[in-house]
Amino acid sequence: MITLEQCRVWDQADELAALRQQFDLPDGIIYLDGNSLGVLPRSAMSRAQDVIRREWGADLINSWNKAGWWSLPVRLGDHVAPLVGAGAGEIVVTDTASLNLFKVLANAVRIQNSRHPEKKIILAERDAFPTDLYMIQGLIELLDQGYALQLLDEPGDLATAVTEQTAVVVLSHVNYRTGYLYDMEAVTGLVHAHDALIIWDLCHSIGAVPMNLKAADADFAIGCTYKYLNGGPGAPAMLWANPRHHGALWQPLSGWWGHARPFDMSTEFVPATGIRSFLCGTQPIVSMSLIACGVDIFRQTDMQIIRSKSLRLTDLFIQLVEQECAGLDMMLITPLDHQHRGSHVSFRHPQGYAVLQALIARGVIGDYREPEVMRFGVTPLYLGYSDIWHAVQNLKAVLQDREWDQDRFRVRGLVT
Amino acid sequence: MITLEQCRVWDQADELAALRQQFDLPDGIIYLDGNSLGVLPRSAMSRAQDVIRREWGADLINSWNKAGWWSLPVRLGDHVAPLVGAGAGEIVVTDTASLNLFKVLANAVRIQNSRHPEKKIILAERDAFPTDLYMIQGLIELLDQGYALQLLDEPGDLATAVTEQTAVVVLSHVNYRTGYLYDMEAVTGLVHAHDALIIWDLCHSIGAVPMNLKAADADFAIGCTYKYLNGGPGAPAMLWANPRHHGALWQPLSGWWGHARPFDMSTEFVPATGIRSFLCGTQPIVSMSLIACGVDIFRQTDMQIIRSKSLRLTDLFIQLVEQECAGLDMMLITPLDHQHRGSHVSFRHPQGYAVLQALIARGVIGDYREPEVMRFGVTPLYLGYSDIWHAVQNLKAVLQDREWDQDRFRVRGLVT
Repeated sequence: MITLEQCRVWDQADELAALRQQFDLPDGIIYLDGNSLGVLPRSAMSRAQDVIRREWGADLINSWNKAGWWSLPVRLGDHVAPLVGAGAGEIVVTDTASLNLFKVLANAVRIQNSRHPEKKIILAERDAFPTDLYMIQGLIELLDQGYALQLLDEPGDLATAVTEQTAVVVLSHVNYRTGYLYDMEAVTGLVHAHDALIIWDLCHSIGAVPMNLKAADADFAIGCTYKYLNGGPGAPAMLWANPRHHGALWQPLSGWWGHARPFDMSTEFVPATGIRSFLCGTQPIVSMSLIACGVDIFRQTDMQIIRSKSLRLTDLFIQLVEQECAGLDMMLITPLDHQHRGSHVSFRHPQGYAVLQALIARGVIGDYREPEVMRFGVTPLYLGYSDIWHAVQNLKAVLQDREWDQDRFRVRGLVT
Repeated sequence: MITLEQCRVWDQADELAALRQQFDLPDGIIYLDGNSLGVLPRSAMSRAQDVIRREWGADLINSWNKAGWWSLPVRLGDHVAPLVGAGAGEIVVTDTASLNLFKVLANAVRIQNSRHPEKKIILAERDAFPTDLYMIQGLIELLDQGYALQLLDEPGDLATAVTEQTAVVVLSHVNYRTGYLYDMEAVTGLVHAHDALIIWDLCHSIGAVPMNLKAADADFAIGCTYKYLNGGPGAPAMLWANPRHHGALWQPLSGWWGHARPFDMSTEFVPATGIRSFLCGTQPIVSMSLIACGVDIFRQTDMQIIRSKSLRLTDLFIQLVEQECAGLDMMLITPLDHQHRGSHVSFRHPQGYAVLQALIARGVIGDYREPEVMRFGVTPLYLGYSDIWHAVQNLKAVLQDREWDQDRFRVRGLVT
């Protein structure tokens, strides 16, 4: 039997506990949705004030040089790089994860077309974060060159799904719904063994699980900064290309910021060398400047320590649901195996949507994803063991007392 | 002879003078670069604090519904619409102007391909804002379907340049360098007479000159929010499609926010109906939320009043340069004809770059564009007649005393 007292003992011994003070968390809330929108770092407000008052208001156009707006996408990329096993000058932070996927996919398709023009399959998961599938479909339709999207039903089918027809594989490192975590190095090796290229979507793993893009020898990666990294709502996304590909970088969203010499104002697009060629148009400086506030907190610890606590917290969540909610229709869909678990746990329940709304009404914030899935994100920087205890106690009350069985919990918001 | 006293009389009678108090302008500066980066509205800081503290920090993920993040791109579009002669539900604010050009160009090319597949020319100006040319080149290269970019040398050549081969014409409503203003209605008519479609780039005209996209029957338009609209550095851009095309909207950057029912999490992309189909990925909410602060100030007056003062200010600038700087190598490249002048004036000078740096050292902020061009933006909401007087007096001093002839004024910044 796990008890609240035991959770408190673990909290006392938690070496990450002090970092919680660097976030501005709302009172009376247990926030288990950092996998969707990270919380507010305390330093973000003063950073925003400085960017707005000094960089924009006082220094105006001079801030392109003086405040370094010009180099911000690359500087932020270097800041994020240690979290994903990338080097300096290998990442830009720019645009959105969806757009960045479009860019690297166009690049990967072009590389493959020059080497293996007969390869026409882009392989992705049926259970991919849907926007990835939509962007792949958009590029395939625009290209109109016979490419086709093949959908993988289960991670276990990957070894047989990748064939000599496969040009590019797009996978979520951690699945947004189930929390399934791929072995990046093994899968990259499998994909390369078939002369295919791999694009990793890190949206649900960056800042959540350790990874080493270079050691895995991956080809491209894209990811959010506003989930586990706490960069702020809709903050621009990251994009990584293996330096191995730097001689063959190309992308069609060729805007001024990706030009080799943008202030020559020449009529011909000449791409910048290296990762800067993935930049396009002018970036939202205020939102972008806040990203560093979240990433700074990660730099006070390391991803192995975060991972260790993350697994203890997800284990605890799973064990407490078994212990406290047995017989109440909660069905775990997240892998029990640590090797294949990200940093969120998901359960199906026949009334998943209403259960989750009832839980939110009690101040425990998770989110819902079709079909019937309740997701609970675990963020070691600002969550403790007792938080998990109280979350599950609230869940137990909602289920035992059928609190969910009210019309008000069945009303769907515009965004679910 | 125009005198400072005369300018002060005009300032006294200026019905827009009071609006200057709604901006936070740095002391001791005359800012003539609002055509590149607009100034800070006083309301932006409290808006940012509210978005960061309440919407992000306190309400977190719930803000998608509660704070209306979900509808923000369309609500901002409706807010901007009256400034460009568009109706409700016709504009979204999202992504960057470069990306939005890519989207509407892909849409226009597809429409033309279904009607006139033999048309393969995309016509744009040699003197277009370069990123427009780069995005056109990127799409042409990606499509690889025989499209070609034809460059127009002079606005006067347009009537002969548009032919039966022309599929799409992309023009800047106001030229970023010269300030040349096209007659939107006449040019749209000319383009349509050749069964071509027109995309207007409004980056240097939105909030600067009145326009009526619907009366002109234009096809598509894109534009910045961070120049004359004072939306903040790199704030997301606007995109308009004529409702006439709403049955044929399509764009390849098909991300989740443009899906008809994104929370169904379906594997197939089904575009939203109407203008929302031009949305793609998650937007930078903090930057985006500040756009309304700038646009709100426009709504306290109207574009005809702004235009009237803009022309008086650019006339004054030109006349004062003639009066005060005669024989000092200033060569006007902006049209004298009001019908063809936007809201900035540009001069060539053999030492344009150094002259401009010397002027900036005196607190008069303009900007420089190759070759040899000094640009001075005129923004009636926060500039008065005396400001123009003092700007030209400083210019005169820089030129007469050859203040520009110092090494420190020849050093180029990363961004010019």
